[in-house]
Amino acid sequence: MQLGIIGLGRMGGNIARRLMLNGHTTVVYDRNTAFVEALAAEGSTGVTDLPALVAGLAKPRAVWVMLPAGAPTEETIDTLSTLLEAGDTIIDGGNTFYKDDIRRAKTLSEKGLHYIDVGTSGGVWGLERGYCMMIGGDAETVKRLDPLFATLAPGLGDIPRTKDRKSDDDRAEHGYIHAGPAGAGHFVKMIHNGIEYGMMQAFAEGFDILQTKNSESLPPDQRFDLNVADIAEVWRRGSVVSSWLLDLTADALASDPKLDGFSGSVADSGEGRWTIEAAMEQAVPVPVLSNSLFSRYRSRGQGTFGDKVLSAQRFGFGGHVETAKK
Amino acid sequence: MQLGIIGLGRMGGNIARRLMLNGHTTVVYDRNTAFVEALAAEGSTGVTDLPALVAGLAKPRAVWVMLPAGAPTEETIDTLSTLLEAGDTIIDGGNTFYKDDIRRAKTLSEKGLHYIDVGTSGGVWGLERGYCMMIGGDAETVKRLDPLFATLAPGLGDIPRTKDRKSDDDRAEHGYIHAGPAGAGHFVKMIHNGIEYGMMQAFAEGFDILQTKNSESLPPDQRFDLNVADIAEVWRRGSVVSSWLLDLTADALASDPKLDGFSGSVADSGEGRWTIEAAMEQAVPVPVLSNSLFSRYRSRGQGTFGDKVLSAQRFGFGGHVETAKK
Amino acid sequence: MQLGIIGLGRMGGNIARRLMLNGHTTVVYDRNTAFVEALAAEGSTGVTDLPALVAGLAKPRAVWVMLPAGAPTEETIDTLSTLLEAGDTIIDGGNTFYKDDIRRAKTLSEKGLHYIDVGTSGGVWGLERGYCMMIGGDAETVKRLDPLFATLAPGLGDIPRTKDRKSDDDRAEHGYIHAGPAGAGHFVKMIHNGIEYGMMQAFAEGFDILQTKNSESLPPDQRFDLNVADIAEVWRRGSVVSSWLLDLTADALASDPKLDGFSGSVADSGEGRWTIEAAMEQAVPVPVLSNSLFSRYRSRGQGTFGDKVLSAQRFGFGGHVETAKK
Amino acid sequence: MQLGIIGLGRMGGNIARRLMLNGHTTVVYDRNTAFVEALAAEGSTGVTDLPALVAGLAKPRAVWVMLPAGAPTEETIDTLSTLLEAGDTIIDGGNTFYKDDIRRAKTLSEKGLHYIDVGTSGGVWGLERGYCMMIGGDAETVKRLDPLFATLAPGLGDIPRTKDRKSDDDRAEHGYIHAGPAGAGHFVKMIHNGIEYGMMQAFAEGFDILQTKNSESLPPDQRFDLNVADIAEVWRRGSVVSSWLLDLTADALASDPKLDGFSGSVADSGEGRWTIEAAMEQAVPVPVLSNSLFSRYRSRGQGTFGDKVLSAQRFGFGGHVETAKK
Repeated sequence: MQLGIIGLGRMGGNIARRLMLNGHTTVVYDRNTAFVEALAAEGSTGVTDLPALVAGLAKPRAVWVMLPAGAPTEETIDTLSTLLEAGDTIIDGGNTFYKDDIRRAKTLSEKGLHYIDVGTSGGVWGLERGYCMMIGGDAETVKRLDPLFATLAPGLGDIPRTKDRKSDDDRAEHGYIHAGPAGAGHFVKMIHNGIEYGMMQAFAEGFDILQTKNSESLPPDQRFDLNVADIAEVWRRGSVVSSWLLDLTADALASDPKLDGFSGSVADSGEGRWTIEAAMEQAVPVPVLSNSLFSRYRSRGQGTFGDKVLSAQRFGFGGHVETAKK
Repeated sequence: MQLGIIGLGRMGGNIARRLMLNGHTTVVYDRNTAFVEALAAEGSTGVTDLPALVAGLAKPRAVWVMLPAGAPTEETIDTLSTLLEAGDTIIDGGNTFYKDDIRRAKTLSEKGLHYIDVGTSGGVWGLERGYCMMIGGDAETVKRLDPLFATLAPGLGDIPRTKDRKSDDDRAEHGYIHAGPAGAGHFVKMIHNGIEYGMMQAFAEGFDILQTKNSESLPPDQRFDLNVADIAEVWRRGSVVSSWLLDLTADALASDPKLDGFSGSVADSGEGRWTIEAAMEQAVPVPVLSNSLFSRYRSRGQGTFGDKVLSAQRFGFGGHVETAKK
Repeated sequence: MQLGIIGLGRMGGNIARRLMLNGHTTVVYDRNTAFVEALAAEGSTGVTDLPALVAGLAKPRAVWVMLPAGAPTEETIDTLSTLLEAGDTIIDGGNTFYKDDIRRAKTLSEKGLHYIDVGTSGGVWGLERGYCMMIGGDAETVKRLDPLFATLAPGLGDIPRTKDRKSDDDRAEHGYIHAGPAGAGHFVKMIHNGIEYGMMQAFAEGFDILQTKNSESLPPDQRFDLNVADIAEVWRRGSVVSSWLLDLTADALASDPKLDGFSGSVADSGEGRWTIEAAMEQAVPVPVLSNSLFSRYRSRGQGTFGDKVLSAQRFGFGGHVETAKK
Repeated sequence: MQLGIIGLGRMGGNIARRLMLNGHTTVVYDRNTAFVEALAAEGSTGVTDLPALVAGLAKPRAVWVMLPAGAPTEETIDTLSTLLEAGDTIIDGGNTFYKDDIRRAKTLSEKGLHYIDVGTSGGVWGLERGYCMMIGGDAETVKRLDPLFATLAPGLGDIPRTKDRKSDDDRAEHGYIHAGPAGAGHFVKMIHNGIEYGMMQAFAEGFDILQTKNSESLPPDQRFDLNVADIAEVWRRGSVVSSWLLDLTADALASDPKLDGFSGSVADSGEGRWTIEAAMEQAVPVPVLSNSLFSRYRSRGQGTFGDKVLSAQRFGFGGHVETAKK
């Protein structure tokens, strides 16, 4: 099958590669011509602007936009919508807010264009392991593009089958689902990321207690000398917390047991915040997901105005002077 | 009435003063002889060691220990227990862990000594406003020492009476209670401090949102130019969040609207942590009290090992490089 | 001054009363004619529809809408916008989302109408104590309507002045502020409510620990017999947690020490949720405000699907059967 | 090697079985004689009291106590300490608080007895998959008993090796570690369980948002029709949240998509609470671990006194009547 791809960063480039390695053809574009040339050398048709990309695709066209969420994606889709023709499909594989998908699908459908949103997990490992995909859009279009999704997905692999599973739709077992109408793909991906934040923070807090149990600030008789790299390793083997995130943690600790190579300033993305907003709209209590996000805000180490309010109150009622006044 | 006082810091010194201003007599001791001399100049009998303090008191003696919780208090009480005689009373007015009170009361009672724990709120304002006191110990001893407590307490003042209140015990309305047996006083004070942390953090978070709504990092059309000093002031007047902590916040913001005089590094005391432990023992969900404490830990701005674990995981699965690597 | 008022529930009715008691005149409307008649009997001009209300007001008109946020308010303002004339003013005194204010002010200004949003705190006590008001909108209109706001506000009263306060604008000390352009009033009120949730939850958790410390499920030697009504009372007198919320808690506990009259199913309003959304947009960590909201969700006692997921996982890895299967 | 085992529930029984299947011999005791007979039928030496168990073991003896933490374990170890002889070893494989291990090891060492604490993860799956073990105690004793631990552990299996791992101690890769002196084993296991709580709650909250997104209480245009069983399945395949807990969730949802078989009343164990206490002692912020615990408290659906305090306050300031008064 043929796919146009816009945005050839780590994700977009590897999507092109995985497709070509499995017999599909790609027409690719990126502002950065070096990225275009690199993929052209691997077999893609490289183009230098969007009209050329559209011209290079057979109808009905399918164009995968793999750009940062927000303005870059929005503007590209706006432009595409003026170049494509009824029956063509725009796929947004980025991290778009699902309400933007719903809005776009409605607008584009008025021009006869299809809109598919694909939440994609797998990061840098996707080329090799395949991409776990959560897809939103009309069922017919998703079906028509199935050869692409089936190729990008990990497939059954050697992961044990789920006990008692029975379903008419075997796509989930191959690593992709049609989650529902436009927006449903990114909604499910958004929640995935929310959970990811929570799991990561659970490990972070646990390892923090383990590591500080070795601290010289504790009285000697309360101190252990725990080997956190060995602990991560042993938990990989039969414990309840076995997980890919633990595997990655064990990797990191194996080569850098004190993680001195990291400062611990942790970014957060829109998906974490939108997950909380969705929970608010649905009145779901999400203390773990929200506090995971707050820990990231805090990790960036800027003192908050709120902290100063605390200091001022303490000074007011107790004359407490800050211990570590800058 | 006569009272021995050990520890003449801000709290202990003002307790002596408030008693003397109201006709009681005091025998006072502090390691720092300047403090002893200052109070002697105001009418106290100053002494230079614990035996002299005990010798200076008429039986049955009452000695108020107003020292930092932990070793200083523990050691002083140990020493006193060898100097005092059956029928005498030791009062711990500090911030002792209530289980230590229970243990001490048991040990001291074997020598015929009484033990009273007094949780004291009011900070630097106590001399003028009186001290709000939560008292633990045997009822008879608490009763016998009532003249001291009644003097130290704020009294009815001009605070409106509580609607529908009827009680055989009017001490609460005068600002002190006999909460129960040894330990009960500090237990109630501990919970008071837990609540205080939660209220402070509620204000801190709210003012943080207000202040960052002015931030230049927001798009101009989403920005306000809120005057947080005026907001604190207006809330003092008829709003649901009216409180002494708000008054103090308004004071602070009136003279330093950006709180530039504070770094926001906020200490925490044992009482906050013990409150959480008590909640654990009683299976009480305390998300607000615990997260208030965690915010203080975080306010001190040290990156945690847990944050580094997050960074390492993100690097592992997504190749994310920290935005603000030191 | 003359004011039209739409919505004569507890808030709207008392606003009319407080204005009339102080020499202003009102034209009032409510779907419920009994409410209209009651106020007419107290001196208002009662009308039976919006055109009559508009007809009854002298230009430039001012109409205060005091209805539930959302559709009722929105539809009423839409209708008013077709009846009023350039130079007239609509005041929304309800609990509207501040972004709706911004949108409305823009739309209405195209017709030459002014839009003022007033966040109002004070609840059932406003008639007597006055309303604490946070006002958004253009400065000129706010200034022109000042006689109304000055009357509704509590005024200086006998609340002590804030130390070091100096401001060219003495409205804050009288209990109302012009917070900024349209939306700013409701924004500040929204944050006020967020803080209120946090303070309430801090008290809730503290009293929960106190009350469960009396529980027969604890071993006898770990149990106290704390009098929570007395504790609330004593804290009103000189402690750091003194506040109006504590006064109310003391009131409630004085007449019903176990609060048997309440089930503890606690509603939440939009303002609590929007506060969290604002914090997300501004990357402010708000663990206390968010967890206060989650506690309310939880208080309503419906089991969540998430809880079932926990049960299912525990059954999966450990064969744990639920202790209290329904 | 020979091992005495006390407590033949699911864990103790399977430990005996896994040892015998691999050439070790066991002497077993349980209050429940049926359990003893069952294992005797599989090759164990069954005994009817502790003296018989001790008599049945060759010196230096090793006895594995696999009983509920607290009194049952404590009393059994007390009795054993009077029956065993210098050089013998007591192994506590239960969920004991690590400070109890430290205390016991000290007491027992005065009699020349060795004490080993083993935190064991793996639940009902251990017989087949092996037990992930975290061991505390003196290195020499742990070394001497290595044949037992090596048999009980999962071994290398087919789990991929950790990249860059280099260690002189290959036990971690085989699924067991010597974590440190007495107490260290249970400390590490305790943190493991804390993390487990956090990961579980992260999944619980995420699936809660997914499931409620289907709710009929949402406006139709905001509703999806998400298949949570398919979502769990697809995430198993290449996503960042891949984990054993997700596998179990997928299992559960495959056979019961709405989890109607569960009420969602979730127990918690000492380990979760002790994790929070350890964090308090070390000043580690643990919002996720603590809130996971609070969610379990809340899952049990008992209204709290704190909730009633909220209701009472709301009634006090706003006249709010509970929506769902019982």
